[in-house]
Amino acid sequence: MEVLLRLEALSRAVSALPMFPLFDAAHYVASTVALREQPGAVGVARHSPFACWFSAMLHCFGGAVLSGLMLAQPSVAPLSNTGSVLLASLVWYLVFYCPLDLVYRCAAFLPIRLVLSSMKEVSRTWKVLGGVTQARSQYKDGLLVMVAVGWARGAGSGLIGNFEQLVRGVWKPETNELLKMSYPTKVTLMGAVLFTLQQAGRLPIEEHHLVFVYTVFLVYSKVWMMLTGSASSPLAPLEAAMYRVFFALQPQEPTCTMQTCDQLSEPGNPTRSTSENSSTAGSVGLGSKVNSSDCVETQEHCLAKTEEILAQSTEHRTHLQKRK
Amino acid sequence: MEVLLRLEALSRAVSALPMFPLFDAAHYVASTVALREQPGAVGVARHSPFACWFSAMLHCFGGAVLSGLMLAQPSVAPLSNTGSVLLASLVWYLVFYCPLDLVYRCAAFLPIRLVLSSMKEVSRTWKVLGGVTQARSQYKDGLLVMVAVGWARGAGSGLIGNFEQLVRGVWKPETNELLKMSYPTKVTLMGAVLFTLQQAGRLPIEEHHLVFVYTVFLVYSKVWMMLTGSASSPLAPLEAAMYRVFFALQPQEPTCTMQTCDQLSEPGNPTRSTSENSSTAGSVGLGSKVNSSDCVETQEHCLAKTEEILAQSTEHRTHLQKRK
Amino acid sequence: MEVLLRLEALSRAVSALPMFPLFDAAHYVASTVALREQPGAVGVARHSPFACWFSAMLHCFGGAVLSGLMLAQPSVAPLSNTGSVLLASLVWYLVFYCPLDLVYRCAAFLPIRLVLSSMKEVSRTWKVLGGVTQARSQYKDGLLVMVAVGWARGAGSGLIGNFEQLVRGVWKPETNELLKMSYPTKVTLMGAVLFTLQQAGRLPIEEHHLVFVYTVFLVYSKVWMMLTGSASSPLAPLEAAMYRVFFALQPQEPTCTMQTCDQLSEPGNPTRSTSENSSTAGSVGLGSKVNSSDCVETQEHCLAKTEEILAQSTEHRTHLQKRK
Repeated sequence: MEVLLRLEALSRAVSALPMFPLFDAAHYVASTVALREQPGAVGVARHSPFACWFSAMLHCFGGAVLSGLMLAQPSVAPLSNTGSVLLASLVWYLVFYCPLDLVYRCAAFLPIRLVLSSMKEVSRTWKVLGGVTQARSQYKDGLLVMVAVGWARGAGSGLIGNFEQLVRGVWKPETNELLKMSYPTKVTLMGAVLFTLQQAGRLPIEEHHLVFVYTVFLVYSKVWMMLTGSASSPLAPLEAAMYRVFFALQPQEPTCTMQTCDQLSEPGNPTRSTSENSSTAGSVGLGSKVNSSDCVETQEHCLAKTEEILAQSTEHRTHLQKRK
Repeated sequence: MEVLLRLEALSRAVSALPMFPLFDAAHYVASTVALREQPGAVGVARHSPFACWFSAMLHCFGGAVLSGLMLAQPSVAPLSNTGSVLLASLVWYLVFYCPLDLVYRCAAFLPIRLVLSSMKEVSRTWKVLGGVTQARSQYKDGLLVMVAVGWARGAGSGLIGNFEQLVRGVWKPETNELLKMSYPTKVTLMGAVLFTLQQAGRLPIEEHHLVFVYTVFLVYSKVWMMLTGSASSPLAPLEAAMYRVFFALQPQEPTCTMQTCDQLSEPGNPTRSTSENSSTAGSVGLGSKVNSSDCVETQEHCLAKTEEILAQSTEHRTHLQKRK
Repeated sequence: MEVLLRLEALSRAVSALPMFPLFDAAHYVASTVALREQPGAVGVARHSPFACWFSAMLHCFGGAVLSGLMLAQPSVAPLSNTGSVLLASLVWYLVFYCPLDLVYRCAAFLPIRLVLSSMKEVSRTWKVLGGVTQARSQYKDGLLVMVAVGWARGAGSGLIGNFEQLVRGVWKPETNELLKMSYPTKVTLMGAVLFTLQQAGRLPIEEHHLVFVYTVFLVYSKVWMMLTGSASSPLAPLEAAMYRVFFALQPQEPTCTMQTCDQLSEPGNPTRSTSENSSTAGSVGLGSKVNSSDCVETQEHCLAKTEEILAQSTEHRTHLQKRK
């Protein structure tokens, strides 16, 4: 009984935590460090500090910008919160330009990184909840709107990733967070659904309890994934089960497997051998069966791609030999 | 006289047709089938059902999203209409994941397809009219705004096509609906102009008559194009005449024709012969004369492109021979 | 004393200048001529006048569209100002389709171009001031918002450049106005900062004085840059000093210089010699030192790129020789 009372007190304390400045700062540091670790970001910071700053602001305030766009509220609104912007700008400056790279090295040191990431996850709960209640004030019964805005607010910087990269001159249209969701995006979506159901009175749980449970889950899974270096999320079995139930109903034709052309399209190691390439394209499959028209299309596509890579790599080797 | 009275009654009946659920459902089915028939869509449906669902929603509600963005109204608004979203999601699910592909095969069966497409065209009239009146409530005398919003509402999914494709990881910047309008986009623009003029009292016709005439025209031309497989639209002569009057005023210099470099830039058939390529670049013209500075620029561009393709294809043949 | 009084009268007169129709028309002409001089624009004008018109409107009204999006005001609002749109459309039509290219040739004639560009710069002042005051009416103390909106209004067509190009089927993700600011964008940002400080009472100067001084500076520097053909802006020393103070704090490691891979990635002259390429990649540096991890990464990147170009150019030469 006493334990329950203590948990109750703890959950009330957690749901009354002020985000500014401590948790916000941790969010800014973790986001800016994540930006800095993207390929090419340091170069952008050298050549055009302004684009780098803008990109960092999108990392820090992407959720607010995106949810603003979705609800037709000014997308410059985050800039009106001068304190937050100055704090985020200071963090950006220190992470990218601090002498001896002291700040970045500290923030990238595993124990500190663990603390920062955990605090960032705590601030995520608040953002999701904020998005859901903001949407609810405009769309009383719009459950889907509440989910969408809560999700956008909590995982915005990921969802606008393609356009954030564009600021830095990087364009990767072949991937995005909808096509291949990262773990934070997934877990934020789950949180948005839970908070929406709670706010609409469909979940028999009080708000501060849900805040507490969801935050603990976020922090625990984040720490666990960072410590074990595991890429498989705690949600993976659930997802796989849902996928099998809902999206694998079609009878699977036995002879044709989806070719892994994707790995061929990567800017490959120029010295990998020709035979390796052709065998890759010829036999490896993802195991997910597709219907036969797709199959033929994919195979032709892969063949063409293999020939292309063959040509490139042979040519490369020839030139490398010539240079020797 | 009796015929006129009957037509009058019919046009009143048509303009009082409720769109939900029947015509809306037909629109969703036709849109989702169109999505499914795009290259790569089935693969996306396999690997990331969520991106596929989002893409389908953009196909179904693209017009509402785009007109919302243009009028600074929430772009998530379509999600607040839970009934429509659930219906569209159900349609999406059945078209992509139904066992034995029953729903898709049915919907793709020509007679059913004809009916669905016709119903979709009927719903287009309502969307255009809805967009025009929505814009009019904000911009009383803004004829251009009314045209723009009516057009966006009626042909939105086409106009945001580049970004809808981006959701599926496809990026084709070299083409868009403004650069090369499809027939539905053109005819929707025409409709937006007509309804705007009618609403502003510049056309001596009543609303329900215009609704009737425009709907009949849409359905008739759609059915005709589907049955004959004709790509040339009923508007083509009108367009050609307008083009000749307004945009071909410049004196045409005799010696220089626009090179068809575009076809060179296509990801060409790797086995097409070298001579074929060079002759293509050297002599084929579109017939549309351009002034001489462009001409030189284009020729140089084409020459460079031809050399590039020459190099690639020769190299390809060499490797193909080696592999034999 | 008399001179001061005259200047006072002059500055009041300048700040009371009406923009429509004369200065607006000059802005439209200068913007449309700039569009026409972009590679490929004339071709677009031939093949799809509508895309060309839309692109021209983005050039003329890009600032209003962007600032509308930022403040959640209708982005179609510029279309509601029928007079301006008709004027801009007329200008667009004459610049692209006038018989004998009379209008374009006149506008491109240096003295006339100087006058037009100067008038365009005058209208820029009004746009920046308009943006700042518009933002101030929504965000009383949001200095950053005022700067952002003033900047967007004054330099909008540059800032949305990537998407304006997309309308014409051109996509250059590797560059944008944030990554590599043009002079007009920079000077507009400076103006937005100055007007924001003035409006917030932080600058001891009256509005009409600032308008006068800023306008004179804009016109003077524009004319000077056009006459001397100089690419270096009057702001360059200031920028360089700021860069050195704020963004070059990290200790500079002596052995590694940033490679100029960028110039390698340009679509190179196909006939440039192999040795030239390799020496470029091997020794030329930008002079901006980077830390060692980047250094290794960059060098590897450059090496790979050099090999690629080597391969391409050798192959090219072979084929050119074969064709002879």
